[in-house]
Amino acid sequence: MGHIGYRAASPEALDRRVAAIEASDFKTHGWVDGDQGHGKAFRFEDPFGHLFEIYYDTKWYKAEGDDRPALKNTASAFTGVPPRRLDHLNLLAEDVTEFKRFMETCLGSRVTEYIQLDNGRIGGCWFTINNKTYDLACTEEHGGGMGRLHHVTYATDQREDILRAADIFLQNGVHIETGPHKHAIQGTFFLYVWEPAGNRVELANAGARLIMAPDWEPICWTEADRKKGQAWGLKTIETFHTHGTPPVNKGG
Amino acid sequence: MGHIGYRAASPEALDRRVAAIEASDFKTHGWVDGDQGHGKAFRFEDPFGHLFEIYYDTKWYKAEGDDRPALKNTASAFTGVPPRRLDHLNLLAEDVTEFKRFMETCLGSRVTEYIQLDNGRIGGCWFTINNKTYDLACTEEHGGGMGRLHHVTYATDQREDILRAADIFLQNGVHIETGPHKHAIQGTFFLYVWEPAGNRVELANAGARLIMAPDWEPICWTEADRKKGQAWGLKTIETFHTHGTPPVNKGG
Amino acid sequence: MGHIGYRAASPEALDRRVAAIEASDFKTHGWVDGDQGHGKAFRFEDPFGHLFEIYYDTKWYKAEGDDRPALKNTASAFTGVPPRRLDHLNLLAEDVTEFKRFMETCLGSRVTEYIQLDNGRIGGCWFTINNKTYDLACTEEHGGGMGRLHHVTYATDQREDILRAADIFLQNGVHIETGPHKHAIQGTFFLYVWEPAGNRVELANAGARLIMAPDWEPICWTEADRKKGQAWGLKTIETFHTHGTPPVNKGG
Amino acid sequence: MGHIGYRAASPEALDRRVAAIEASDFKTHGWVDGDQGHGKAFRFEDPFGHLFEIYYDTKWYKAEGDDRPALKNTASAFTGVPPRRLDHLNLLAEDVTEFKRFMETCLGSRVTEYIQLDNGRIGGCWFTINNKTYDLACTEEHGGGMGRLHHVTYATDQREDILRAADIFLQNGVHIETGPHKHAIQGTFFLYVWEPAGNRVELANAGARLIMAPDWEPICWTEADRKKGQAWGLKTIETFHTHGTPPVNKGG
Repeated sequence: MGHIGYRAASPEALDRRVAAIEASDFKTHGWVDGDQGHGKAFRFEDPFGHLFEIYYDTKWYKAEGDDRPALKNTASAFTGVPPRRLDHLNLLAEDVTEFKRFMETCLGSRVTEYIQLDNGRIGGCWFTINNKTYDLACTEEHGGGMGRLHHVTYATDQREDILRAADIFLQNGVHIETGPHKHAIQGTFFLYVWEPAGNRVELANAGARLIMAPDWEPICWTEADRKKGQAWGLKTIETFHTHGTPPVNKGG
Repeated sequence: MGHIGYRAASPEALDRRVAAIEASDFKTHGWVDGDQGHGKAFRFEDPFGHLFEIYYDTKWYKAEGDDRPALKNTASAFTGVPPRRLDHLNLLAEDVTEFKRFMETCLGSRVTEYIQLDNGRIGGCWFTINNKTYDLACTEEHGGGMGRLHHVTYATDQREDILRAADIFLQNGVHIETGPHKHAIQGTFFLYVWEPAGNRVELANAGARLIMAPDWEPICWTEADRKKGQAWGLKTIETFHTHGTPPVNKGG
Repeated sequence: MGHIGYRAASPEALDRRVAAIEASDFKTHGWVDGDQGHGKAFRFEDPFGHLFEIYYDTKWYKAEGDDRPALKNTASAFTGVPPRRLDHLNLLAEDVTEFKRFMETCLGSRVTEYIQLDNGRIGGCWFTINNKTYDLACTEEHGGGMGRLHHVTYATDQREDILRAADIFLQNGVHIETGPHKHAIQGTFFLYVWEPAGNRVELANAGARLIMAPDWEPICWTEADRKKGQAWGLKTIETFHTHGTPPVNKGG
Repeated sequence: MGHIGYRAASPEALDRRVAAIEASDFKTHGWVDGDQGHGKAFRFEDPFGHLFEIYYDTKWYKAEGDDRPALKNTASAFTGVPPRRLDHLNLLAEDVTEFKRFMETCLGSRVTEYIQLDNGRIGGCWFTINNKTYDLACTEEHGGGMGRLHHVTYATDQREDILRAADIFLQNGVHIETGPHKHAIQGTFFLYVWEPAGNRVELANAGARLIMAPDWEPICWTEADRKKGQAWGLKTIETFHTHGTPPVNKGG
């Protein structure tokens, strides 16, 4: 994973965020020139080696030729495999509580749901800066890696899109790790596959679920809750706890 | 329609909004005590007779007994007819441009899509104060009414929920006015029915579509665009242009 | 339309059918050599100029290379636009009662539903020789044509496939004539488009509906029933009554 | 399980079947009077203790009052939990090959798919007497029981109905055993639950898949095939191999 980019709500919001990041004890890399799709960005880093950028200037995609949509309010022709957008990332960190402090301090993120382990640690945490129920999640790193990705998720318009995608993955020899099923946490319908390089990719559909309430109380899931499996009872498979990218070099 | 309630993002945001409303030339009714589900609210009115309220204090629904959900992050048992939430209202106003000024001034709403008529007027306007593509719409009143409702909309999790609902409406003798089909404007999948008292109710599904961009450029639909009908070609039926509630008293 | 091919259940069933056809007063063309996909066939004709063939010997498609399916029980890779199979044809005939006599006599077809017009004529008739609710339909020709096709239909696995197809048709400039909606007759979910040459093509999904009963009583739809429109109220559009292929030569 | 009833295609077909059963070496119980829903029936038994009946005379359900459907071609009001029909049974037998001989001899069933174990035995077999891909399945009894049921299946119109049902089961405390997922064998989308008395009930959707070909070659699944799990990789859970009803009395 190169870096994670967040867009600020305005140039002023960008300045406020950068001031907050600089005032914190988290590592900063300073301003960098634009990248594909966006202008200048401020780069910083969480304690677990994930690089973040925050920016405001963006380049809007302009569909040309065959990619021009039939409807004016649609970004592109959009008739193939149907993910609507990038939905969220799930990162791995050895200390989720510390990662939570990073997200709240640097990005002003709110926690919507989390896992409270019996040992007192937070096992996982779901964050948002908008009306989506989460735009970034963090779960505990069990493999000794640094700066690792658990998965990246694309949102589909319908659950049926995910069922159809399962057949497409099957037909094309893409490894389906688990699903389709419904998450207990956040209630999204999901399917996890590994792309050929080994990164885990999720397709997910949240239905119409959003969090509009400014005073949403974070939902706490205990270990006892988690033992019930996913919403409809599916048990979490072993690789889900261990597989992240890049792989950890175990050699000497 | 009694009144339309908006919730502010914080007590401070509520104060800022009320100050903006009071500083405007729009009619105010002042503070009222709480109502079912919320605390004290500031009441004001658009130039077309629709009452609005804005509040912050809210009462969270607490499911008891059989209505307690199996999943902690779910508001209620939620297994019957499946609208997830109230999605938006569509009001009627003789001058949509003036109504737009009201929404921008009093609620800070942004316009995401609108209809530009050949006669220079705005035929319809879609507003939002969040990441939903709209939470309120206004279209031109053609029946001489004041303060009228065009429809109220409930969001479903899947398009299939709407198809199933169509059979339920059919079986129960509820008047299905038009649909199911896909709107060109906003791209939502829809079905319109009239409840027994005559109010138009829409079921809608937007898929995963949201507007996250702070610099979204409003989409302009011309009369030429509108003549193509809905997204898949359905023509708008006559009652959709004329039926609002309450009915207009034509008598002398 | 070239010809309509039916497959007999066995070589013996083929012989029995041919004997029945030859014993009838309908026009026969005799045996013809095989065609793409099947062996020798007996050719005959209805009174309205549609050619039929009946055969038994068939050539099974054998998927090779990239078209080989991941699952043994699947005919091909099958991951694109998803019609599962050819579902039925709808022909036009000036006298549906006479066409019904042809189908019963020559193919042993059963009627599952039909339209009884107030003038005593049959307005449309749905036939089957299997557990599908119909494999061929015939409706009244109003345009003075002979041997015309009203539409050919492909079955999809889910209704969602049809909604998705609607977006694909829209994006590719294919004329969507009407739908999606649910037929009152036979209850199938449908969408009608015209392919570039003008032939009407339907995508349809019947859900799990089949007719297993050997003593099924045909359902009669009166003109009063038909005036209610399709199942959820959609009115039949004008071209549906007039457009067939090939076009009728009106010139002198 | 009381008994399994099959309906013959005609009174004559019933006579032919009964003659075939009587000419066989399978156990017969002779004619019995009608039961709920059907008239006189011939009763016989497979070598594993399952009772079968075959009959022709049937009583059609006539919907009255609130159960009268809005559409003439629909059996009832049909707007709740939406199974369209009883789809199939899955029985358990110690010797599936012998059970297959029973089904072919007594009911004229055809095999559409089967499991060929490495030890030479047939592990499971899917039968049909119509255009459905199967109306009865038999898998190997591993628990020492006699005359046991593995599951009974109801067909839904859409896959979405099964996903929605999963939430309803969850909410109502019904044990979800496995799924939703797609079977490799027969390709149906499925969900298995246990009703309170312990009988396994499946909801299934086959899409538009039917077997129309009279010369369908049975699909053979090897143990190596089965080790890949279900179509999208789900592993079969342990209870699926062991749980049948009634429970086996292990006591002395």
